[in-house]
Amino acid sequence: MKFTTYMRNGAPRLAVVDGDRLIDLNEADARIPADLRLALQAGVDLGAAAQAALESEAARQPLAGVKLAPLVPEPGKTICLGLNYFDHAKEGGREKPDYPWFFFRGASSLIAHGDAGVVPRVSSRFDYEAELAVVIGRRVPRHVTQADALQYVFGYSCFNDMSVRDYQKRTPQWTIGKNFDGTGGFGPVLVTADELPPGATGLRIQGRLNGQLMQDANTTDMIFNVAETLALLAEVLTLEPGDVVVMGTPAGVGQARNPPVWMKAGDSYEVEIERIGTLVNPIVAEAA
Amino acid sequence: MKFTTYMRNGAPRLAVVDGDRLIDLNEADARIPADLRLALQAGVDLGAAAQAALESEAARQPLAGVKLAPLVPEPGKTICLGLNYFDHAKEGGREKPDYPWFFFRGASSLIAHGDAGVVPRVSSRFDYEAELAVVIGRRVPRHVTQADALQYVFGYSCFNDMSVRDYQKRTPQWTIGKNFDGTGGFGPVLVTADELPPGATGLRIQGRLNGQLMQDANTTDMIFNVAETLALLAEVLTLEPGDVVVMGTPAGVGQARNPPVWMKAGDSYEVEIERIGTLVNPIVAEAA
Repeated sequence: MKFTTYMRNGAPRLAVVDGDRLIDLNEADARIPADLRLALQAGVDLGAAAQAALESEAARQPLAGVKLAPLVPEPGKTICLGLNYFDHAKEGGREKPDYPWFFFRGASSLIAHGDAGVVPRVSSRFDYEAELAVVIGRRVPRHVTQADALQYVFGYSCFNDMSVRDYQKRTPQWTIGKNFDGTGGFGPVLVTADELPPGATGLRIQGRLNGQLMQDANTTDMIFNVAETLALLAEVLTLEPGDVVVMGTPAGVGQARNPPVWMKAGDSYEVEIERIGTLVNPIVAEAA
Repeated sequence: MKFTTYMRNGAPRLAVVDGDRLIDLNEADARIPADLRLALQAGVDLGAAAQAALESEAARQPLAGVKLAPLVPEPGKTICLGLNYFDHAKEGGREKPDYPWFFFRGASSLIAHGDAGVVPRVSSRFDYEAELAVVIGRRVPRHVTQADALQYVFGYSCFNDMSVRDYQKRTPQWTIGKNFDGTGGFGPVLVTADELPPGATGLRIQGRLNGQLMQDANTTDMIFNVAETLALLAEVLTLEPGDVVVMGTPAGVGQARNPPVWMKAGDSYEVEIERIGTLVNPIVAEAA
């Protein structure tokens, strides 16, 4: 099952994807909250709701004609991992970490598939990072085991963890370089966990700058897989419905190249994950 | 004007403080959203609304009899500064930073005045940090100047940025050690900006463990003051109504003492800021 979030009258709305069309779930059944996070919080069985909508005569509209929103427009938490592919840690001169480098993104940094990634006025060191995003479906019990963790995952999507490298490294805390407005590409669709291998392992993940392959790896190469990451997080905090965990990027980022490659206005970056989809964000400069 | 957020029927509700009593603002005027962030987002003039409520016959209830909630129960962003008092940077062996060490807290870590701070099962290195919290009232324009920044502040409150030190330092990213459940004390009240010096400067800030003075400083000692911090953040991102900026802690934390002082079950930590209030959190151990 594939879900997406699109904009209608200025508000994001949850939809199920039916081929090249979508069905607005709240329109199909008014009991379903129009927001993905709220629907998950309310405990709606979205699989059943989507199945009912797909089998119904509910109105369809072409996906090509809609403006999308970030897949979860306002997650309670967006928790990102740094250095979670060994080849990427290595290209940055880092050892393989023995604990994930976690940092958070605020919702104000998130953008949809098709939205522009924004080169900030204060920096030109604007980099891409193709990543797998995990959307939590149900509240994860504290201290859940790895063996039990994956049952709380609703599904998987694509993320571009665009990074402003000089701000990321102004202090040892990366957070600020990961929270510029217009830098967190998220979408276009979510594929439910039941349609993918457990933990979304074994999927090719690629990043392309203006069509040229820059990142090419497999989700199996992650140092901390999804189940282990959720279990580690559950030692610390409560993962809630609609929270998002972004699993880190493989090698090939712009800053590690010689000479470095920075994204600039007119560029476009694509994140493609096998069996999930392709997230495209054109790049623009922040207005003066 | 003083505001607080209290719990009624399992939901947080905004109130204005009238001496030792409170008035539920939504009850006094049904047009006012019951949640502080939503009220600010809706552009409600909370000063005028509170004034009208205070002058009305609206029902009062004793503050002593209510359970409070975190002052903003679910901020869009909670942005914290590290090392923002020189004496605290120095006690940790750090230089005076030339840019703030920003990290984010998720709402799942926040607790109210009176709620228990929780020593996690996985660590006993549980430390306190008395801090000033800034609540954003109106959306801050990107690239706002320091001179203009303070007009977007709604008010100030107390924060205890309780930190799990070994997790904070497992990697260079502090975020995870700052995001355990039950570690972000926030309240009990907010004092509106108009009642305090610009940027809440010149206020004594103290932290007491079981009544013993552990931290004692003045908000004037902050390296980056509130206006400068907001202007730096506005280079990066959009600060929105209900967002919270937590301004860092002065010297005296437990980890810098010899021997170190860790909070344990049965302790209590108080954060007092002159003219704002006193935040008290008893300490308990996480349930086994």
